[in-house]
Amino acid sequence: MPPRRVIGIDAGGTKLLGGVVDDQMVVHHRVRRTWRGADRQETLDIFTDAVEEVRAASPDVEAIGFGVPALVEWDAGVSRWSNHLPLDGVPFRDLMSERLGLPVLVDNDGNASILAEARNGAAAGARHAVMISLGTGIGGGLWLNGAVYRGAKGMGAEMGHAVLKLHGPECPGGCPGIGCFEALVSGNEIGREGRRVAEANPDSALGQRLAAGQEIDGGIVTELAHAGDELCREVLALIGERLGFGLVGLVNTFNPEVIVIGGGAARGGDLILEPARSVIAAHALPPMVEGLRVLPAHYGDEAGMIGAALMALESLA
Amino acid sequence: MPPRRVIGIDAGGTKLLGGVVDDQMVVHHRVRRTWRGADRQETLDIFTDAVEEVRAASPDVEAIGFGVPALVEWDAGVSRWSNHLPLDGVPFRDLMSERLGLPVLVDNDGNASILAEARNGAAAGARHAVMISLGTGIGGGLWLNGAVYRGAKGMGAEMGHAVLKLHGPECPGGCPGIGCFEALVSGNEIGREGRRVAEANPDSALGQRLAAGQEIDGGIVTELAHAGDELCREVLALIGERLGFGLVGLVNTFNPEVIVIGGGAARGGDLILEPARSVIAAHALPPMVEGLRVLPAHYGDEAGMIGAALMALESLA
Repeated sequence: MPPRRVIGIDAGGTKLLGGVVDDQMVVHHRVRRTWRGADRQETLDIFTDAVEEVRAASPDVEAIGFGVPALVEWDAGVSRWSNHLPLDGVPFRDLMSERLGLPVLVDNDGNASILAEARNGAAAGARHAVMISLGTGIGGGLWLNGAVYRGAKGMGAEMGHAVLKLHGPECPGGCPGIGCFEALVSGNEIGREGRRVAEANPDSALGQRLAAGQEIDGGIVTELAHAGDELCREVLALIGERLGFGLVGLVNTFNPEVIVIGGGAARGGDLILEPARSVIAAHALPPMVEGLRVLPAHYGDEAGMIGAALMALESLA
Repeated sequence: MPPRRVIGIDAGGTKLLGGVVDDQMVVHHRVRRTWRGADRQETLDIFTDAVEEVRAASPDVEAIGFGVPALVEWDAGVSRWSNHLPLDGVPFRDLMSERLGLPVLVDNDGNASILAEARNGAAAGARHAVMISLGTGIGGGLWLNGAVYRGAKGMGAEMGHAVLKLHGPECPGGCPGIGCFEALVSGNEIGREGRRVAEANPDSALGQRLAAGQEIDGGIVTELAHAGDELCREVLALIGERLGFGLVGLVNTFNPEVIVIGGGAARGGDLILEPARSVIAAHALPPMVEGLRVLPAHYGDEAGMIGAALMALESLA
């Protein structure tokens, strides 16, 4: 029997990544888009357009899974609210299914990511795992008792919007929270700390990039850190330390076997993960730390796309 | 058929409350003890002694359930770690079963409390509920997909040891955390804020109690607040506000139908709960707040005892 194929689409706060994925988890065609301030109609058109592009290369796909950076009512397939894309109150599943003529599944991007990592990735074999994805903001997913946790209306688990700093800074975007985990730890926050360092140290590698007109974002900080730049390493260590304090609560709450760190910012690797592990070892309840693993996402920043495809594949079974 | 009877014992950080409970949730005999610095052997003797006292009044009991303020490996019945009682590494279930000659179940006190509230109390009918008990510290329990959540080794859910204030104060007791929810919000914390207010305002009702040599604890602050004292109301409002910020993360993470607030400090009632509800309404993700109820424990500070008895009753079935 030929392998069954579906399309997985992962929409983050900044960009879309999609692909045709078969039931052996092989990715056959990839597609990328960026949002650049698209309104609702344009955003939905970009989704449709991306699907049609990969579908043209592989017309035999049987279903489409979407991970979106939004609160999704799972049973209804409705995007209720998003602080990243204009997707408030969009009956996403039915609308896309009608546009595309295929069965559609839609879930939060963090839920898609933990599905991929728990089935076949860094958390394979675990019955209790937590995933935190560091991108534009923080995405999250919970794998509890061997299944994705979704909550009463299916809108969980927005762990990025737990308060990490009482009376802290306003959460960026439309979240009404203050001092949220996401407001202190994210790919964007790496860029913000990087700009602070660049301005304070004009002779540094980052300062020179800034003077040359380059945008200082999380990617450039991570690149220079891997190349050995000490100030950039300090930025990643600072974010990693904060990440660790956010993870302490998740370790103590969930008693998980594995914590998976994904998203673009996970490219910092151990430069972010080691400071986080140190904070957990020092500050979480000791029996909770025994045997706990804190690992980078096996699928890197493709976890959301693979997980979105897995949702679709599992719906075919 | 006569109702079946068991013993439920709830051990908090300061005191023990036990009772004979029948399968209609009627409490027949109650027993109380305080720890007062007892060592491990004395602590275990107090447990045994409390059980024997109520058992003498009702010899027909068939099992005993214990809720203890400790990390309990559920499957093994072992108390791994406690920052409140000297119960580290105690094979509690087997030891008590041998001493008492009856089947014994043991779980974290917060898990016992949410079981009671979800089966028959404030969260009855809900499939997703979170319980926070404010006592000496913060106890917690999760009711997810219609069951108590325990995690990989059964030691969840220590929500009181999530970081609420980055780089905040050391967590009291043996927890290695800093800025924990429990370090900022608890019955003890009401007392501590009360003492601060008493010292700063010697002419106030609290100040006069302090001058008269009375110990300023959470109970006296709550009593005066209910009697109308404005400064004591402000203390409860302050703690309620912090409680609300802690709950924001739990609302966004779990998308629950109900949050139940229990423990001795819940006697503050709406003087604590209303400020907490206001913070949730203002700062949680809006769709998560729709239909959410934040309720006092139906069983008040007996939730742990009733839940411990329920564990025992359900083991008989």
